[in-house]
Amino acid sequence: MKREIFRKVLPLADALAIWRQRLAKGGLSSPMEPEALDVRESLGRITAAPVAARISSPFYHSSAMDGYAVRFTSTIGASEAAPLKLRIGKDAVYVDTGDPLPDGFNAVVMVEDVNLEGEDMEIVAPVTPWENVRTVGEDIVATELIAPEGQKIRPVDMGAMLAGGVTEVMVRRRPRVAVIPTGTEIVEPGAELKKGDIIDFNSTVLGGLATQWGAEFIRMPIVPDDRQLIKAAILDAVDKADIVATIAGASTGSADYTEGIIKELGELLLHGVAIKPGKPVMLGIINDTPVVGLPGYPVAAHTAFTLFARPVLMAKQGLEEGASGFGWVRAKLSRQLASALGFEEFVRMKLGKVEGSLIATPLGRGAGLMMTLTRADGLMRIPAMSEGLGAGAEVEVTLLRARQEVENTIVSIGSHDNAMDLLANSLKKRHPRYSLSSAHVGSMGGLMALKKNEAHIAPTHMLDEETGRYNTPFLKRLLPEMEIVLVNLVHRTQGLMVPKGNPKGLQGLRDLKRDDITFINRQRGAGTRLLLDKTINELEIKPEDIAGYDHEEFTHMSVASAVLTGMADAGLGILSAANALGLDFIPVAKERYDLAIPAGLMDSEMISALLEVIRNDTEFREAVVSLGGYDTSEMGLVVQ
Amino acid sequence: MKREIFRKVLPLADALAIWRQRLAKGGLSSPMEPEALDVRESLGRITAAPVAARISSPFYHSSAMDGYAVRFTSTIGASEAAPLKLRIGKDAVYVDTGDPLPDGFNAVVMVEDVNLEGEDMEIVAPVTPWENVRTVGEDIVATELIAPEGQKIRPVDMGAMLAGGVTEVMVRRRPRVAVIPTGTEIVEPGAELKKGDIIDFNSTVLGGLATQWGAEFIRMPIVPDDRQLIKAAILDAVDKADIVATIAGASTGSADYTEGIIKELGELLLHGVAIKPGKPVMLGIINDTPVVGLPGYPVAAHTAFTLFARPVLMAKQGLEEGASGFGWVRAKLSRQLASALGFEEFVRMKLGKVEGSLIATPLGRGAGLMMTLTRADGLMRIPAMSEGLGAGAEVEVTLLRARQEVENTIVSIGSHDNAMDLLANSLKKRHPRYSLSSAHVGSMGGLMALKKNEAHIAPTHMLDEETGRYNTPFLKRLLPEMEIVLVNLVHRTQGLMVPKGNPKGLQGLRDLKRDDITFINRQRGAGTRLLLDKTINELEIKPEDIAGYDHEEFTHMSVASAVLTGMADAGLGILSAANALGLDFIPVAKERYDLAIPAGLMDSEMISALLEVIRNDTEFREAVVSLGGYDTSEMGLVVQ
Repeated sequence: MKREIFRKVLPLADALAIWRQRLAKGGLSSPMEPEALDVRESLGRITAAPVAARISSPFYHSSAMDGYAVRFTSTIGASEAAPLKLRIGKDAVYVDTGDPLPDGFNAVVMVEDVNLEGEDMEIVAPVTPWENVRTVGEDIVATELIAPEGQKIRPVDMGAMLAGGVTEVMVRRRPRVAVIPTGTEIVEPGAELKKGDIIDFNSTVLGGLATQWGAEFIRMPIVPDDRQLIKAAILDAVDKADIVATIAGASTGSADYTEGIIKELGELLLHGVAIKPGKPVMLGIINDTPVVGLPGYPVAAHTAFTLFARPVLMAKQGLEEGASGFGWVRAKLSRQLASALGFEEFVRMKLGKVEGSLIATPLGRGAGLMMTLTRADGLMRIPAMSEGLGAGAEVEVTLLRARQEVENTIVSIGSHDNAMDLLANSLKKRHPRYSLSSAHVGSMGGLMALKKNEAHIAPTHMLDEETGRYNTPFLKRLLPEMEIVLVNLVHRTQGLMVPKGNPKGLQGLRDLKRDDITFINRQRGAGTRLLLDKTINELEIKPEDIAGYDHEEFTHMSVASAVLTGMADAGLGILSAANALGLDFIPVAKERYDLAIPAGLMDSEMISALLEVIRNDTEFREAVVSLGGYDTSEMGLVVQ
Repeated sequence: MKREIFRKVLPLADALAIWRQRLAKGGLSSPMEPEALDVRESLGRITAAPVAARISSPFYHSSAMDGYAVRFTSTIGASEAAPLKLRIGKDAVYVDTGDPLPDGFNAVVMVEDVNLEGEDMEIVAPVTPWENVRTVGEDIVATELIAPEGQKIRPVDMGAMLAGGVTEVMVRRRPRVAVIPTGTEIVEPGAELKKGDIIDFNSTVLGGLATQWGAEFIRMPIVPDDRQLIKAAILDAVDKADIVATIAGASTGSADYTEGIIKELGELLLHGVAIKPGKPVMLGIINDTPVVGLPGYPVAAHTAFTLFARPVLMAKQGLEEGASGFGWVRAKLSRQLASALGFEEFVRMKLGKVEGSLIATPLGRGAGLMMTLTRADGLMRIPAMSEGLGAGAEVEVTLLRARQEVENTIVSIGSHDNAMDLLANSLKKRHPRYSLSSAHVGSMGGLMALKKNEAHIAPTHMLDEETGRYNTPFLKRLLPEMEIVLVNLVHRTQGLMVPKGNPKGLQGLRDLKRDDITFINRQRGAGTRLLLDKTINELEIKPEDIAGYDHEEFTHMSVASAVLTGMADAGLGILSAANALGLDFIPVAKERYDLAIPAGLMDSEMISALLEVIRNDTEFREAVVSLGGYDTSEMGLVVQ
C-alpha cells in the first residue's frame, strides 16, 4: 500500500473521462451484438431491435358475447311494434363469446335479446355494424411497435409479443465479466484454513453485482503471485469475457505484476485514483477488452468495481447508467464527519426515519470492513475539496436499499447485547415488513441519540453510582425534557471473561491489579464501563493499576474475541458473549437491560410490532434464555 | 360471460379476507421449508434461518502495513534522543501488509520508521499495543449475526457469509406455481393459425410475473375443454406445485368445468369478485394446494393473479406483500373517468411529469387489451362505492415502472403517425434514459392537452379551411395565451386506402358517395377528419351521403386494418399505414405534420434529446423515408 502513497493519483472525474473516451474510441462501450431468443425465455433481457407485431390481435373478427351473428343490414327496421324474423343458419348463426364471426356477418345480437321460434329467431331492435364484435386489431395492429430497441423485457412485453405473433426476439447478448482473484494467500471458501490465508469472497460479491447489473459472471480460478500464471490467466480471461477484473492480494506483489502485464499485453490507462476507498485501482485495455485492476480490500474492490466496471456494463447493454439503482435521498447527518482533502470519499451510511426526518449515520470506514457494506443503507459522497461535514448537515445519500425498506427500519442506538441480534431476527420473521438495525455506541451514546431524535430506541443498562438504581436516574438527568418509557428486555449477568480453563486463575475484579494480567476495556459511556468503574471504585482499585484499562473495544463480542485470541487475559462482559466464543466466565453482577423508548413512539406501528415480539414471541424468549446468563422474568414490562 | 352476470359477487376485501383466513387455517401461507444452498448460488434467495459467522474475519492478527512485527513492550522508551535497537529475527520480524503476526508479537513498526543496521533495526519512537495490526474479528466476530431469517440475499451478504466461514446457507425453497391454460381454441405461440384460434400468451405473462415475485414457474400443457382432461391436469399440477392457476378459455366451457372440478376434488371458496377486470375469478383448495381459477382475458387474468396469487407467493416466502413494487405516487387525473358502482375497478394509467406535476391519463379499459398493460405506467384503484372521478382530481397511482423512468418520459398527445413509432425507437436507442410515449387522440385533442399542461408535445396536422394554412391558425385560436414552437417532423401524403388491387375501382373521394362503398372514418378532432371534411365540402358531398361516415377509428393503422379485414371498402389515411398492411393507395393531399412544443420546454434536457434525434439521426430519417409517402426536407426545422 505504502508504495502507492506517492504515486500520482488522478481526480475521479478525470479518471472517468479518460476511461470513457478510450472505451468510446475503441467502440468498447457500444451495445453488445444481438442474439435471437425464444420470447418465453426473454424476461429481463434488452431488445436489440424494435419489435413489431407480425399479426394483428385479435387476428379475426370474433364475437364479444354469446349470441347470434347477423348482417346488420338485415336487422334494420326491427322494433317492439314490428319485430323481425331471421332464419337461423342462414341469416343468423349462433356464436359463443370468442367464436370467429362467419364470413359475411358483421354484428352480433346478444342471446338475451332474441326470441327463438322454431327455425327462426325474432328480434325487436336493430344492431349497428360491428356491434358486440371484437374486431381485428382491437388490441394490436400488425406492424405496430410493441417494444422499442433497448427496452428491458417485462412479462407484459412477452405477452404482447406472443399476441402479436412474435415468438423469437432479438436481444443484446449479455456482457460477460471475468473476475480473477490473485494472491498466494488467497484460498477458496470452505478450504481448510491456516494463519495467513485469506478467503476469496470478493469475487462472489463482484459476480453478484455484475449479475444484478445484467451481466454474465465468469469466475476464474485463484492465481498465486506468479507473473507467468497471472499473465496466462489474464490472457485467458480477455479471450472469454467482454470485461475483465483482477483482484489484488493483500500484499502489493500481485498488483505490481498486474500493472506490468497490462503494460506488456496492452495499454495501461491509469493507476491510482483520488478516491477512498479504492485508490490503487488501475484501468487498461488488452486485446480490445477493458481490464480493471482492483485493490484487494473488499470495500475498496466493491467501490472501484462499481465506479469503473458498472458504467461499461451498462453501456454494453445500452442502458442508462443510473438505471438499476434505488435513487437517492436527502438526510440529516447525525454526527460530524472528517474527510481527507484531495480524495473523493464514499462513506457507507445507516439511515433511519425518526420523527419524520431521515437521519444518516456514518458506518465504519475501513476498506476491509465487509460488514459495513451489508449494514449500509446508502453511500454518501464527500467531494475531494471538502475536509468534512458538521453534525446536522443536510447530505445526499445514494440508496443501497429501497426507500420503503429504510423507512421501515427501527433504529436502535445504544448498548450492545447478543439478545438484540435475536430480537432483530425474530422481528423480521414475525413482521417481515420491519427491520431492526443496531448501532453499538454504549448506553450513554444511545440516550444522546434519543435526545437528538436520531434513534427510535436506545438499549441501556446504566448503573447510577449514588442510588444504585438502573437507567431512571440517567433519564432524569440527561433527558429531562423528554417523556421516555423504559421497557425491560432482560436481566443479565456481567462478569469477567477469561480464556477457557482460566489459565491465570482469576477469581474476580480484584485480580485485575495483578502484574501478569492484561485487561481489555469497553469504551467510555458504555454501561459495562460504568459497572467496572463503580465496582473497582468500591474495591479501591485505581484505573492506572489495571494494565490495558485504556485499550477500548465497542462490543461484548469484540472484548470476548480479544480474550480468545490472547490480546488480553480478561475483559468484562456478558455471559452470552463468553459462551459464544467458549470462554470461561466469572460472574460479577446481575444488571437490568432496558429499552428506552420515547413515549410518543409507543403506539407507532413499528414499535408496536417490536413490543409484540418482545412480549408474545415464546420462540424469541427461549432463544434468549438458551444464550445463557439471562433472566427474562420482566421481559416486555414497563419498568421504572 | 353472461351467465356470470347474476352470480353473487363478493366485495374484494371480503374475498381477500376469506382467502387469507382459509390459507392461514390450513398453514398454506407459512414460509416454505428450508433447503441448503451453496452461498455462491444464493443471490436473491431468502434466508430460512439466521446466519451467524462460524469464524472471525480476520481470523488471525495480521499486519496492516509493510513493516516489522515487534512486542510493544520492547519499544518502550525509544526516542530521537535515545534510539532503541531490536535484533531482526528475534525481537523484530519483517511482515508485509496482510501477513499474520508471528506468535507472541503484538504491534508493527512501519518500514519507513525503521533504520536498518546490519542484523539490527533502530527505532526512535515506541509503538502502542496492536498498533498497525488488523486484529482478529475486526470485521466479523465469530457467532455474530450476518443475516436474520427472512432476508433477501444480496451480493454483499454472500461476501459477509463467506468471510465469516459460512459456505452453505439455509434458504426457503422457492414456491412453485403451475399455470394451466385451458380451452379448445387455445394454441401454442408459433402454431399455424386458423380463425378461432387464440394464442396462449397469458401463461407466459403470469409465469414472468411469478418469476419476478421470486417463484418457480411450471408451465403446464394447454388442455382442451374436456372435463376429464382438465381434471387430470389440475391433479397433476396440484401434485407438482405449491399454488395452481388455471386460465379459462374464451367461452365459459372450461371455466365451468374448473368450478365443478374444484368442488369435486376439494373446496371452492368463492367464484366471482366485484372487481373490474377480473370478476369471474374463483378460489379454492385442492389437496392443501391453493387453486386460483382465472378468467381468460389477459388483463383480467393479470389483475386477478396479482390480487390473489401474489399474496400467497409472498407469504410462502415470508416476504411482505408490498415488498417488490415500485411504490405509488400522487397524480392529477387528466380527464373525467366514470366507473361502475359496486365494482372495485383497476384502471391502467399513463403518467407524465409536465410542468412539475404528475399527470395521469387513463388507458383503454377493455379486459382484452394487452397493449394497455405494456403501455401503462401505473394502476389506479377506483373504490366500489365511487361512480367515477372528475378531471383534475388528485389520485393515487400504484407504479408499474420506476418513478425515475416515468419522469423521463416525453408525453406526446395528439395526432397519430407511424413516424412517431420510429421516433420513440430512435430516442430510446440514442438516449437510453428517455422514452417517448404517444397517446392518439387526434390533433385537436393534442392541443387541448398542451393547454392543460398534460403533454410535453402535441403532433398536429390541422388544415385551416379558411386560410389553407396548417397548424398556426389553430394555435392562435385555441392557445392564444401560450407561446408554442412548431417543429416540422415530416410532410406526408394522405389518401384513400383500399384493398389490394382496388377491387371496387375507386378513383378518389368523389366515389365515397357510391352506394356499394362503405367508408371508415377517423374521430372528430383528428387532422385527417378535418382534411376529409374540408375536401368533401369542396366537392359538395354531404356526410350523410357517405355510408360509414359515423363509424370512427382512432389511428391510421386501425383504419387500415378495417379496410384489410373487409369492415370497410375505403378509409382516409397515410401511405405508410397502407404500405404496412399491403393496401392500395389513392393519393388525396400532401400535408404538414408538426410537433407543437411549448417554448419553455425547448431547452429542457428531455426535449433537447428528442430534437437532437429529429435533427441529427440519419438512421431515423432514412427509416421514415423507407415507410413511403414522407418528405423529410423540413424535418427538425422550426416552421410557422
